[in-house]
Amino acid sequence: MGAVKGKRMPRAVRERQMMDAAVQTFAQLGYRAASMDEIAELAGVSKPLVYLYLNSKEDLFTACIRREAAALVDAVRAAVTPGESADRQLWSGLRGFFTHTAEHPDGWAVLHAQARTQGDPFAREVAVMREEIVAFVTLLIAEAAREAHRNPSLPEREVAGLAEALVGAAEALAAWANTTEGVSAKEAAATLMNFAWAGLGNLMRGEPWAPPR
Amino acid sequence: MGAVKGKRMPRAVRERQMMDAAVQTFAQLGYRAASMDEIAELAGVSKPLVYLYLNSKEDLFTACIRREAAALVDAVRAAVTPGESADRQLWSGLRGFFTHTAEHPDGWAVLHAQARTQGDPFAREVAVMREEIVAFVTLLIAEAAREAHRNPSLPEREVAGLAEALVGAAEALAAWANTTEGVSAKEAAATLMNFAWAGLGNLMRGEPWAPPR
Repeated sequence: MGAVKGKRMPRAVRERQMMDAAVQTFAQLGYRAASMDEIAELAGVSKPLVYLYLNSKEDLFTACIRREAAALVDAVRAAVTPGESADRQLWSGLRGFFTHTAEHPDGWAVLHAQARTQGDPFAREVAVMREEIVAFVTLLIAEAAREAHRNPSLPEREVAGLAEALVGAAEALAAWANTTEGVSAKEAAATLMNFAWAGLGNLMRGEPWAPPR
Repeated sequence: MGAVKGKRMPRAVRERQMMDAAVQTFAQLGYRAASMDEIAELAGVSKPLVYLYLNSKEDLFTACIRREAAALVDAVRAAVTPGESADRQLWSGLRGFFTHTAEHPDGWAVLHAQARTQGDPFAREVAVMREEIVAFVTLLIAEAAREAHRNPSLPEREVAGLAEALVGAAEALAAWANTTEGVSAKEAAATLMNFAWAGLGNLMRGEPWAPPR
C-alpha cells in the first residue's frame, strides 16, 4: 500500500476520522457547545473539508447518531445466538449491550445524553433505534413465555410493558455504569439479569409477586 | 367569598392558573414551540401579567419543572407507609408513582419528555428530583436486603445499580403507559412490581439467576 498521503486517503477513511472526532466532541462538550472548528482540529483536517464531506453540524450530528445507533443494535444482535434458551439469549444480549456501551462511552453519551435531549429531529433518530431494541426484547419475552407455558398466558400488552421496563432499566444502568467508578460491563449486565430474570423467571413459571396479606 | 373579580384574585391563585396553563402548553407543544402568548391566553390573563409574575419563559419553565417534580416526589412519599415490609412499601410507592403520572400526564411530559431534553439548566432540575427518587429506592432495597438476610450480603454498589434499574424501568413504563391506549396506573404498577419484585424477591433470598450450564 505504501505511505498514504493526506490527499490520497480514501473518502471513507477520512469520513470515519471526522465522525470519530465528532462523536468524541459531541459527547464531551455537548451538541450545542461543540464547534466544527474543534471537530476539524481533532480530526486533523480543515473545517471546509468537514463541511464538504458532512454538509453541516446538524447533518454531522445526525450521521453520528445513525452510526452509533447501528453499531449498538448490531452489537446486541451479534451477541445473541437465535435458538438458545430465552434466558441465555437475554443474558448474551445484555452482555453485548453493556460491553458495547462501556467500550464506546462517547457513542453511548451521544445517543443517551445528547441526541435524546436535543429535541427533534435528533431525538427521533434515537427513538427509532430504541423501538427496534424494544421490539427485539418483546419477541424475546414472548418467546420465553411460550417456552415456559406452551399455552401462553402473558397478555401481549403485559409483554410490551415488560419490554419497556427492561429497556428503560438497561438505559439507566448503562448511564450509571459509565459514570460510576469501577463498575464493569459484566457487573452491570449481571445486575440487570438478576433484576430482570429472577423476576421474569418467576413470571414465566406463572408465579407473579402478590401483595402480602 | 362572593364573586371574585379579576383584579382581586390573590396572586397565588393567579400564579397557579398561569402555571397550569404553562404546564399544559409546554407538554403539548414542547418547550421551544410554546409561546408566552398561548400560555397567557390559556390562563385568561394578559401576556405582560405573565411576565410580571413569572419573569421570562425560562423562569416559567423552571417554575413548572420544580412544581411538577415536587408534586411527583410528594405523591410517591405519601403513598408509602414507613415501617411496612419492603415489598409492600415498594408496591405502594409504585402505585403512587403511576397514579400520579397517569393523573398528571402533562406534568410527567414536562419532566420526562421536555425538561430532560432541553439541556441545562432544565435537565439539571429534573436530575435533582431523579436523584432524590433513586436515593429513596436505594434505601428501600437496602432495607429489604437487611430484612431478608439479617447479615446483609448485597454489596452497596449492587444496591445502587438495582435502584437505577428500577427507576429507569419506572420512567420508561410511565412514558409507555401514558401513550398506550387503555393501560391503567394499576396495571403499569403491577407490571413493574412483577418485573422488579419477583426478581428482587429471589435476590433477597440469595437466589440470583445463574447462567444455564
